[in-house]
Amino acid sequence: MGLVVQKYGGSSVADAEGIKRVAKRIVDAKKNGHQVVVVVSAMGDTTDELIDLAEQVSPIPAGREFDMLLTAGERISMALLAMAIKNLGHEAQSFTGSQAGVITDSVHNKARIIDVTPGRIRTALDEGNIAIVAGFQGVSQDKKDITTLGRGGSDTTAVALAAALDAEVCEIYTDVDGVFTADPRVVKKARKIDWISFEDMLELASSGSKVLLHRCVEYARRYNIPIHVRSSFSGLQGTWVSNEPRGDRKVEQAIISGVAHDTSEAKITVVGVPDKPGEAAAIFRTIADAEINIDMVVQNVSAASTGLTDISFTLPKTEGRKAIDALEKQKGAIGFESLRYDDQIGKISLVGAGMKTNPGVTASFFEALSDAGVNIELISTSEIRISVVTRADDVNEAVRAVHTAFGLDSESAEAVVYGGTGR
Amino acid sequence: MGLVVQKYGGSSVADAEGIKRVAKRIVDAKKNGHQVVVVVSAMGDTTDELIDLAEQVSPIPAGREFDMLLTAGERISMALLAMAIKNLGHEAQSFTGSQAGVITDSVHNKARIIDVTPGRIRTALDEGNIAIVAGFQGVSQDKKDITTLGRGGSDTTAVALAAALDAEVCEIYTDVDGVFTADPRVVKKARKIDWISFEDMLELASSGSKVLLHRCVEYARRYNIPIHVRSSFSGLQGTWVSNEPRGDRKVEQAIISGVAHDTSEAKITVVGVPDKPGEAAAIFRTIADAEINIDMVVQNVSAASTGLTDISFTLPKTEGRKAIDALEKQKGAIGFESLRYDDQIGKISLVGAGMKTNPGVTASFFEALSDAGVNIELISTSEIRISVVTRADDVNEAVRAVHTAFGLDSESAEAVVYGGTGR
Repeated sequence: MGLVVQKYGGSSVADAEGIKRVAKRIVDAKKNGHQVVVVVSAMGDTTDELIDLAEQVSPIPAGREFDMLLTAGERISMALLAMAIKNLGHEAQSFTGSQAGVITDSVHNKARIIDVTPGRIRTALDEGNIAIVAGFQGVSQDKKDITTLGRGGSDTTAVALAAALDAEVCEIYTDVDGVFTADPRVVKKARKIDWISFEDMLELASSGSKVLLHRCVEYARRYNIPIHVRSSFSGLQGTWVSNEPRGDRKVEQAIISGVAHDTSEAKITVVGVPDKPGEAAAIFRTIADAEINIDMVVQNVSAASTGLTDISFTLPKTEGRKAIDALEKQKGAIGFESLRYDDQIGKISLVGAGMKTNPGVTASFFEALSDAGVNIELISTSEIRISVVTRADDVNEAVRAVHTAFGLDSESAEAVVYGGTGR
Repeated sequence: MGLVVQKYGGSSVADAEGIKRVAKRIVDAKKNGHQVVVVVSAMGDTTDELIDLAEQVSPIPAGREFDMLLTAGERISMALLAMAIKNLGHEAQSFTGSQAGVITDSVHNKARIIDVTPGRIRTALDEGNIAIVAGFQGVSQDKKDITTLGRGGSDTTAVALAAALDAEVCEIYTDVDGVFTADPRVVKKARKIDWISFEDMLELASSGSKVLLHRCVEYARRYNIPIHVRSSFSGLQGTWVSNEPRGDRKVEQAIISGVAHDTSEAKITVVGVPDKPGEAAAIFRTIADAEINIDMVVQNVSAASTGLTDISFTLPKTEGRKAIDALEKQKGAIGFESLRYDDQIGKISLVGAGMKTNPGVTASFFEALSDAGVNIELISTSEIRISVVTRADDVNEAVRAVHTAFGLDSESAEAVVYGGTGR
């Protein structure tokens, strides 16, 4: 039996009962002969409470001190978890991100892991301990300051440790049973996915699926660490994310992995842009200089009569204000007529490696949307994904229609047929 | 202007308002031209809440993990305090005990400071920062594990840092105005002491005065760091503790510094001990082997007829059970008849360097107790202290009587006269 890394989120360790339940599960893995490294998040609402305190003393908390504050959350949960395990008669030691050798850059509140040097974890394991590691945190390489990894950082900690320790698997325990073919809150008939490739998981994550973050999956793919996403409340198998289905499991890659949706984006349309070389570049240089990540981009066909065109792009709603301000400042230099801002949009994405060899998929996708009466505003595609932007109000209906059309419904008999027929 | 170390207790930083108030006071010191290092405790009840959580997951929390847990408390308060200072437009950086170079031994939950290497604090000060340091915590020299210093540990952190940084003064901010001639809750007319010597303060601390702990004063005396105990809620001068009164302050050393009392001890009497060499040694070796600290010891005069004697000693009530068990186990080997345990006792101590040259003090002390109708059960003296054990019920009355008799009452006209007359 090899080494496993297990990660437990805040909802799994929300109170003393949760911590004791998780401790038992960890001890079971140890009893099964595994070396066990556990990455743990802060308990339940701890992080929110700390953020609230910070806002009470300072409207814009400083990055370094904010990280120092937030990392107290994992310190509490990991120490309690180690105590609970020892109370079950097994040896456990907890380690901060710094002690576990999680080395990051110096960008406070969203640091990136540069290196992992888990010498103390190795020693603890060799001495028969279960090692408990604080998720979400590290120490900066240059200044030796405490840093945090940003949203979903604990998953990244787990995968990075799994890679550094050459683990057999990184188990991500959460409050759902795994990755689903669509958000079960929207699609009642959504099915749990048994296995999904890194590539499809990356597309789902960047299209709005919340279960795993893009950064964590990217890290796992780079170091080829299988991820097993599963519930901490049951013993069921969850979803395996890896390069290939595991040898002992008969899982065929589905043509379509799932349908993701995202209503966190807004659309900006730059109206009346002179249709000449360099105009688009000037617009997106302005956006990039403001450190804003954009998602989809569409340029309309120029109207021959005016020589003007429109350029639309989508971006997180949270960045909307900043983008508008940056563009307005450059209005004269870029030379556009006006800006339109629309935050009532939604994005629906169909993801599956099977698309590459099934040319009918795109057509079936648009037919399903059309049959559901959903109007399409923007389209963007990759090799294994099609995304469309619609009105926000249409998103749920669109997701359900597409999920049914592609035979993803759990008890559905009416899968569409697609293949080399061009349909 | 030199460097000052300020220490704020948990009641001073109990909530966001408290933190902002303390931040202002710190900034004032900085504006007055000082380099400022601040040691801070956990907010209000944080430590108790963490202990409560620990007890919920494990009846006997492991030392290493317990320290990891508790140190989250200061991490929260120090980060918030640094944020609040920055919000006032001044630069501040917070440091854990480990980052501040507080090196300890490996005795978890009550570690001792071995060395302080405040390189990062120096750098932060040289760069114009206010340095905020977590009290109560350090890092073990051998294993690099997080340790805590035990009760009152933040005061010790402050004095140790003041010594390592060669500070002008260590200011201990608390919720009282300073050190008083007696506990103001018992003696309404107790006076605030303007200046007290290290020696007298040490005796008061070991006799039940709670304002400063013995360990912290001992550290300050060894490195000759003046301590200024004062309120964080007012701008008043508090009590200076140092080798000599400061040059610019006209304070004469009082003959008597104060009256301390302590009701946290119990008395064990070993009855029927053979009056021969080695018996007392056998008893106290047994107690020492159980790692119990005792306070006062009295051996009765042996009754000639039986050749047996009684030996009484006092110890913390919390150690009573352990001591009884240890002695019972050795009953045969030591050869005593029985044990008597009494936890209804109290101790009253009169402290003052003036005793050395005023032989009448002891007599006046006993007369005051006698006039108040208080019976004395045990007596113990040092060069600058007399302590007696009485019934617990008599303690408050005894303290008030002695306080009045020695002219310590704030508006009292009736000070006793003593001197070389033998009275």
